[in-house]
Amino acid sequence: MSAFFEAHRALLDQAIEATRTRGYWSAYPEAASGKIYGESAKADAEAAFRAMLGKPFDIDQPGDGRVGCEVSPYGIALGITYPASSADRLIAMSTAAGAAWARATIENRVGACLEIIHRINRQSFLMANAVMHTTGQGFMMAFQAGGPHAQDRALEAVAYAYDEMKRVPGAANWSKPQGKGDPLVLDKAWRIIPRGVSLVIGCATFPTWNGYPAIFASLATGNTVLVKPHPGAILPLALTVRIAREVLKEAGFDPNVIMLAPDDAQAPIAKELVTDPRIAIIDFTGSPVFGQWVREHAVTDLVFTEEAGVNPIVVDSTSDFRGLCGNIAFSLTLYSGQMCTAPQNIFVPADGIETNEGRKNFDEVAAGIGSAIDKLLSDPDRATALLGAIQNEATLKRIEAARRLGAVVRDSAPVAVSGFAQARAASPLIVAVDADNEAAWGEERFGPIAFAIRTPSTRDAIALAAGSASRKGAITASLYSTDEAVIDAASDAFAKAGVALSVNLTGGVYVNQSAAFSDFHVTGANPAGNACLTDSAFVANRFRVATVRRQKAA
Amino acid sequence: MSAFFEAHRALLDQAIEATRTRGYWSAYPEAASGKIYGESAKADAEAAFRAMLGKPFDIDQPGDGRVGCEVSPYGIALGITYPASSADRLIAMSTAAGAAWARATIENRVGACLEIIHRINRQSFLMANAVMHTTGQGFMMAFQAGGPHAQDRALEAVAYAYDEMKRVPGAANWSKPQGKGDPLVLDKAWRIIPRGVSLVIGCATFPTWNGYPAIFASLATGNTVLVKPHPGAILPLALTVRIAREVLKEAGFDPNVIMLAPDDAQAPIAKELVTDPRIAIIDFTGSPVFGQWVREHAVTDLVFTEEAGVNPIVVDSTSDFRGLCGNIAFSLTLYSGQMCTAPQNIFVPADGIETNEGRKNFDEVAAGIGSAIDKLLSDPDRATALLGAIQNEATLKRIEAARRLGAVVRDSAPVAVSGFAQARAASPLIVAVDADNEAAWGEERFGPIAFAIRTPSTRDAIALAAGSASRKGAITASLYSTDEAVIDAASDAFAKAGVALSVNLTGGVYVNQSAAFSDFHVTGANPAGNACLTDSAFVANRFRVATVRRQKAA
Repeated sequence: MSAFFEAHRALLDQAIEATRTRGYWSAYPEAASGKIYGESAKADAEAAFRAMLGKPFDIDQPGDGRVGCEVSPYGIALGITYPASSADRLIAMSTAAGAAWARATIENRVGACLEIIHRINRQSFLMANAVMHTTGQGFMMAFQAGGPHAQDRALEAVAYAYDEMKRVPGAANWSKPQGKGDPLVLDKAWRIIPRGVSLVIGCATFPTWNGYPAIFASLATGNTVLVKPHPGAILPLALTVRIAREVLKEAGFDPNVIMLAPDDAQAPIAKELVTDPRIAIIDFTGSPVFGQWVREHAVTDLVFTEEAGVNPIVVDSTSDFRGLCGNIAFSLTLYSGQMCTAPQNIFVPADGIETNEGRKNFDEVAAGIGSAIDKLLSDPDRATALLGAIQNEATLKRIEAARRLGAVVRDSAPVAVSGFAQARAASPLIVAVDADNEAAWGEERFGPIAFAIRTPSTRDAIALAAGSASRKGAITASLYSTDEAVIDAASDAFAKAGVALSVNLTGGVYVNQSAAFSDFHVTGANPAGNACLTDSAFVANRFRVATVRRQKAA
Repeated sequence: MSAFFEAHRALLDQAIEATRTRGYWSAYPEAASGKIYGESAKADAEAAFRAMLGKPFDIDQPGDGRVGCEVSPYGIALGITYPASSADRLIAMSTAAGAAWARATIENRVGACLEIIHRINRQSFLMANAVMHTTGQGFMMAFQAGGPHAQDRALEAVAYAYDEMKRVPGAANWSKPQGKGDPLVLDKAWRIIPRGVSLVIGCATFPTWNGYPAIFASLATGNTVLVKPHPGAILPLALTVRIAREVLKEAGFDPNVIMLAPDDAQAPIAKELVTDPRIAIIDFTGSPVFGQWVREHAVTDLVFTEEAGVNPIVVDSTSDFRGLCGNIAFSLTLYSGQMCTAPQNIFVPADGIETNEGRKNFDEVAAGIGSAIDKLLSDPDRATALLGAIQNEATLKRIEAARRLGAVVRDSAPVAVSGFAQARAASPLIVAVDADNEAAWGEERFGPIAFAIRTPSTRDAIALAAGSASRKGAITASLYSTDEAVIDAASDAFAKAGVALSVNLTGGVYVNQSAAFSDFHVTGANPAGNACLTDSAFVANRFRVATVRRQKAA
């Protein structure tokens, strides 16, 4: 059954090569085009999504009951329920399925993973609906980030895992010379052994993009996987698990190699799973509060987390002031700042900056970004597509509280979403504060909340931004400067703080965007998390190597 | 200053290739031969060693005082003292040295590491004296395991680190097509960023062999290293650090990139180091008791340990009974069972085994191994060379206590060591017990103590041995069987338990031996430890990757 492997082998080879060269490469087309995905794909998917609402989710997985109370941020109660089991039973079933999966060849496992991703790709339009109506992302973003971009991240993880496993040879003849005597000879054989049951705890904003690398890295390396979705975003991962189980079954494996482990706020099971000694690997994406709990209470020492970041922008100078304002505005607007890569803190020198339009003072820079947001949102359709909806109601309260932290430069306001009267949507808030008001800007304020921070100098701005990254975590940083010495200083400071730095983005690339096969997402070198999507460290410890060495009988 | 890199580049390439093919390969000759190391090397080294006794150790490292009270297991008080500083000061000096080391090119760092290993190799005879008179190893073993074999493990770690770092390109041009529009273009640059200060806690039995992989993996990846030797085995690591500091200085770096952190029982500093938040990586080799403390109290989550193993032998059948007895006898005798890879538990079916000499009952198998030990030790010079001396007096008490756990098959006795009247040497003890006496055989009893375990069947033996490995840890397992089905079953069981299995060793290879570039030492899949010498997981997380991506100015 390595037919799946053979079918996708060329793609895998390209993917491995891409991870080493890291120029632009993508396996799954991000264009939501009928030419690629089928002319009726969009309409079919929407119909399929509608047909799932209010019903038990159709999945071949045992369960003792059903859970599910997802409500779309666009205002629709999904009413879909999923099979639920106790943590204990899930782990027992997963463990039972693991023996044959662990014994399978690398190619069989990797082939199955590649086929799963391939079939997920064919369902990208359905996934877009599922992601949109759980995370609140706009449709196009839900399609791209929830679909092909997530699939690219999945393939990337499989490529790393395959490459890492194949560095260990299957066998060798070890022959040690003994001078004039006969050499000492051993036949040696190595096999990959998995850790065991891998627990993936998903988040509510990017369930597939953040979940896939862990799911596929663990599967490829022979572990079984329990997928514990956020109660507010089960459907995208349920679709994923359903497809995976189908492929596993076709490949001759127990489909319980991957299981959905859904729960709800009434009877959460995450803590029970985390503290079970049978769980060998934990991947967590979510809040720093629960992340810390997971790190402190996990029995296994193999815990990967992506928690939070307070991402800075340092504005020093620019040769394209309009581009700067437009680019930052877009970054703040995209999915209403609900990306872990979205900037929050915009450090601007108190005495202003040099630009191609002459010197701009602090207020002009802040106002310029604010106006660019207004312009972006002036077209209602574009506004809706960009902003999406607010995933969690708590975010609205955070906006309200943030207004009082300084001088409002651009206020947040509810946004009407065409076709979804009950949608929870809000435009970005920008609040001006002084650099010493770290109580305001020093914490992560998740959502469409940004601070324009009046800073004594660029040098101070870099120190404050890098210092905050080291202490509180940051995934991205952005710098605008025409001065190479400033760029060098920022490169050093943010490297040391473990933050990926983008410089002078004024065009169509945004600091929030992290491209599979090129950008490392999260360095693992500050409190934002230790999971790097994807590097060797993310996969190398998910398996171990067993040896049998044998002397030929005399 | 990549002259060092150029000088050793061909060797590095061979080493990397060797890690992938894992046939026999070695960089540093294990023959203690004057032809290789210089005709006067042996005598010169002994003189140099004698000259160090009773004096302050000559090393260019700052210190606030001196410590050192090593006593050779052969009965000589070394009387050497080493510069000591507080944990706080050591970490501060290490941190200060780290900035330039972190910024150095990969080639500069790796080149320095390779030169250090090269110069250590040239001092192999001196190292042999140092290792012999701290660990108690016999001279030849001290030369080989403490010298070239340890150097091979060091090179292996550097090879893995270099290979892993070089998989990340330095730069790429990222160009994303935009249909008919201009592509989106970014210049991307990546750099390796280290974790910070790396703490290596050495053991008393294999200070260099077990310490080098961590020291060199951390150095190569840009971390600074504090080497905290066991108070009983400082000299081998002091020689190592001295050579390393010389090379670092020549290469233009602050020699404090590596520092000796010696202490004594009166004022131990290990706990203070382990719990300091500035320590980013910890590598520990030692007892499970202190290992557990380190794992539980370390502030960093990057902790590698090698703690302990209760290593089993399963005897099912053999076509070379004499070879079996001789091979096991050698394994029990070598360095008096003080290797983490030495077998302790010999499972033998109660109703005996089939052999080329006909059926042998349980007592005959146990007695056969005992007699083979007697024969090995019948020549006093060979006995001394093989057994070495007992590193720690506590081991003698353990032998005494073990005698009472069952029926003595072969008793341990003091052994006279020619030239060292005060040497602490003892021959192996074999005690026969029943399988259900797990209180006897289920614990690690470090030293020349073995159990012949009367087991209902081979199947039970495999289950007991693998179960014990899973619960208590094991690094090696050995099987004797002429039955392929038994070999398969054992291969599966020990793979699952994370133990490297050797099959039918009756010749000149012993289960205790782990060859660099071929054998993975410790799988990381049972409580014996999570440090695998050396696989990707051992190096991949010692560094992270920082990104700068940059849009060209318009």
